[in-house]
Amino acid sequence: MRNVSSYPEAKADYLQYFLNKGKIKPFRKEFLSLHNYDQAQFYLSLSEEERKKLYHFLSPAEMADLFEEIEEENEETEQYLKEMNKQYAADMLSKMYTDNAVDILKQLEVADQQKYLALMPKEEAGELIDLLDYKQSTAGSIMTTEFAFIFAGQTIKEAMADIKRQAQEAETIYYIYVVDAERKLVGVLSLRDLILRSDDELIRDIMGERVISVHINEDQEDVAHTIRDYDLLAVPVIDEENRLVGIITVDDIIDVIDEEAASDYSGLAAVDVEERTENPFVAASKRLPWLITLLFLGMGTSTLISRYESMVSTASILAVFISLITGTAGNAGTQSLAVAVRKLADKDNEKKNNLKLIFKELATGLVSGLVTGLVIFLVVGIWQHNFILGFVIGMAMLCAITVASLAGSFIPLLMDRLGFDPAVASGPFITTLSDLTSVFIYFTIASYFLSFF
Amino acid sequence: MRNVSSYPEAKADYLQYFLNKGKIKPFRKEFLSLHNYDQAQFYLSLSEEERKKLYHFLSPAEMADLFEEIEEENEETEQYLKEMNKQYAADMLSKMYTDNAVDILKQLEVADQQKYLALMPKEEAGELIDLLDYKQSTAGSIMTTEFAFIFAGQTIKEAMADIKRQAQEAETIYYIYVVDAERKLVGVLSLRDLILRSDDELIRDIMGERVISVHINEDQEDVAHTIRDYDLLAVPVIDEENRLVGIITVDDIIDVIDEEAASDYSGLAAVDVEERTENPFVAASKRLPWLITLLFLGMGTSTLISRYESMVSTASILAVFISLITGTAGNAGTQSLAVAVRKLADKDNEKKNNLKLIFKELATGLVSGLVTGLVIFLVVGIWQHNFILGFVIGMAMLCAITVASLAGSFIPLLMDRLGFDPAVASGPFITTLSDLTSVFIYFTIASYFLSFF
Repeated sequence: MRNVSSYPEAKADYLQYFLNKGKIKPFRKEFLSLHNYDQAQFYLSLSEEERKKLYHFLSPAEMADLFEEIEEENEETEQYLKEMNKQYAADMLSKMYTDNAVDILKQLEVADQQKYLALMPKEEAGELIDLLDYKQSTAGSIMTTEFAFIFAGQTIKEAMADIKRQAQEAETIYYIYVVDAERKLVGVLSLRDLILRSDDELIRDIMGERVISVHINEDQEDVAHTIRDYDLLAVPVIDEENRLVGIITVDDIIDVIDEEAASDYSGLAAVDVEERTENPFVAASKRLPWLITLLFLGMGTSTLISRYESMVSTASILAVFISLITGTAGNAGTQSLAVAVRKLADKDNEKKNNLKLIFKELATGLVSGLVTGLVIFLVVGIWQHNFILGFVIGMAMLCAITVASLAGSFIPLLMDRLGFDPAVASGPFITTLSDLTSVFIYFTIASYFLSFF
Repeated sequence: MRNVSSYPEAKADYLQYFLNKGKIKPFRKEFLSLHNYDQAQFYLSLSEEERKKLYHFLSPAEMADLFEEIEEENEETEQYLKEMNKQYAADMLSKMYTDNAVDILKQLEVADQQKYLALMPKEEAGELIDLLDYKQSTAGSIMTTEFAFIFAGQTIKEAMADIKRQAQEAETIYYIYVVDAERKLVGVLSLRDLILRSDDELIRDIMGERVISVHINEDQEDVAHTIRDYDLLAVPVIDEENRLVGIITVDDIIDVIDEEAASDYSGLAAVDVEERTENPFVAASKRLPWLITLLFLGMGTSTLISRYESMVSTASILAVFISLITGTAGNAGTQSLAVAVRKLADKDNEKKNNLKLIFKELATGLVSGLVTGLVIFLVVGIWQHNFILGFVIGMAMLCAITVASLAGSFIPLLMDRLGFDPAVASGPFITTLSDLTSVFIYFTIASYFLSFF
């Protein structure tokens, strides 16, 4: 029965029954007919005891198919491997696509990595060791080395025979890369092109020579943008000598885009939005470092206000508008910040002038500040029957919004320039910082008009 | 020359030179060798006059290839079509993949839509009219009707001949769907499977019968999650009668995921982060509605504080901590909110109990509030040599953080339940709302201890 995106619950109950009763034959029949993703969901729902039974029911290769679908961030992976017979685990890892196997190995202690690598066939182990060396978040660290390649001098018929031979291993055969004797990348063909041509044509004559490729040290987010912009299913990865060393497929790129979005979003809220825990103590312990840091930053604002305490006791009406000014400036700063962070994430804009962005945000802040200031001038003037007070609040609003907008664009640019991720916890940082400047601006302006309140 | 992700600037200068000098032959030779995405980038860099020349240099089909790569959100698209000869524009639209053609048609006035549709071949126009009817953001609205299909009774050889015939039109032939006489979806095969089998096997015997499909009215974000989870290159779309009506390819899904992320992120900052304008007046005019709305909401907090004005003038020290309490509670509320919105976006969790999420956030808020309250109790107590004041601030902090955490999870869930997008401008809305409750909590608690300040 076909169904939308997930297999029926009843089936899971059957499978669990077969598993626990040791009925291997019906279990394998049902289980292996599932999509690997659904197999993984089933696996993740099992107890340790059940999982251990499962390892006896499935071959390392079958387990590998399932493991490809377990998310990289799963914290239990190490535990799963430990449950398996060491040789079984090593076999499974060597049957997986190299990019996914490396993701798993990276989560282990170096000693454990060595242990599994030692139990693998030499060639597989060598490939994995190479991949483990690539720096986090580069093309090299997410590529797979299982790809289909052919040579320019082959006929289509010869090439097709080569591809069929490679098809079992390759992660995709829909793009086929053409290399020369030194394995340098010289062309590309899609399988679609290939099957539409006649057998005796030469690859050289029909291949595309303008290959979109990425460099092995390129950042994974840039790779994601290349695949997205050019609507590719995969992109070849080349080294310094232009040699084809791997490919990155679109499914891995979707994960990169997801991660990138979650990380920007997390930064704007000072919390890991992928937080999986159901335990409030664990959740609080992860959020508190930010809250407490920001609390101490906020103490700066409190200290500043305390220096104006005598002013407040003379004109207590001033206290009424503190949160309005800090809040509104914070909102404007957050707007600037979000736009700037998004602009920075879109590396296509790299050539563009950052000064221009800052200037634009400054001008936008000025315009927003003027309008907001005018509105609050009228509202406060009418409400409190005091247009001097209205003027003070309006002026403070104008200045505070302008400064916050400037900070909202300047700080992420500065962080980016200094090599930090501009998105990390910058949202609350900006609002807390803008509280400080806003309060300072507010009381400084107010001090000139104290006699009118 | 192969290169990383973008074509050399010098080439663009050449092309522009050929275009302006009317040298059609060298222009076409260079231009048509570019990737469609780069063609589109070149096109977007041209002046109106130059674009009009280009329309004479390229056939509607060539222009269609280029137009597939122009982003949906491009506001100039209507202008581009108006520059073209009407029949040329209609031909171009009918040569495009239906999903992209529909995206463009949707941006036009109904009268203009009709005009172009009337100039197209009847069959193409009919397909587009059907697609235009699907509700925004459903599978139907993003699917394409150009897909490859075969029948279960065919041999591989017959099927391959069919596929080759369909290859020119279909958006992908890497997944081939098997239908019965009523066009009901009964199976799926990958092109990879197909080329590895021998010619005389029957499709029925080798096809996968467990097809992952989506329903035509399913939300595009759910489709995106299906494709992402199952690592698909395309997913078939079926109607009420299980008939295959279209496919959605992974490249369109990347755009959906991008949009989804941008929209969540925009909501958290009350600004459209995809804002493209360089003009500060335009930018300010788009941000001001939020700023002013939040300003008026913030006036609520000011009004509330003004009711405690006499209290502030008696104990001006209270003013010192207003922004600290509102700020910290706002930060905690934003954390809760971001986690809740992200959870809601992940529709896999739909079955889970929303009450459980609210309860978890409440408990997390309580724990965070206790710790933060304790810290601020000590800091204020020591700083101001007044542990009663410290106690008031700490208690207010505890309550304000708990309430803000509760609101941060409850409000997006409520909005979702009421059918609104939980992410829209909820960030600043939560902080502004939490300002109000925090101030109320703060002054209410303080009023019991006034004599100690």
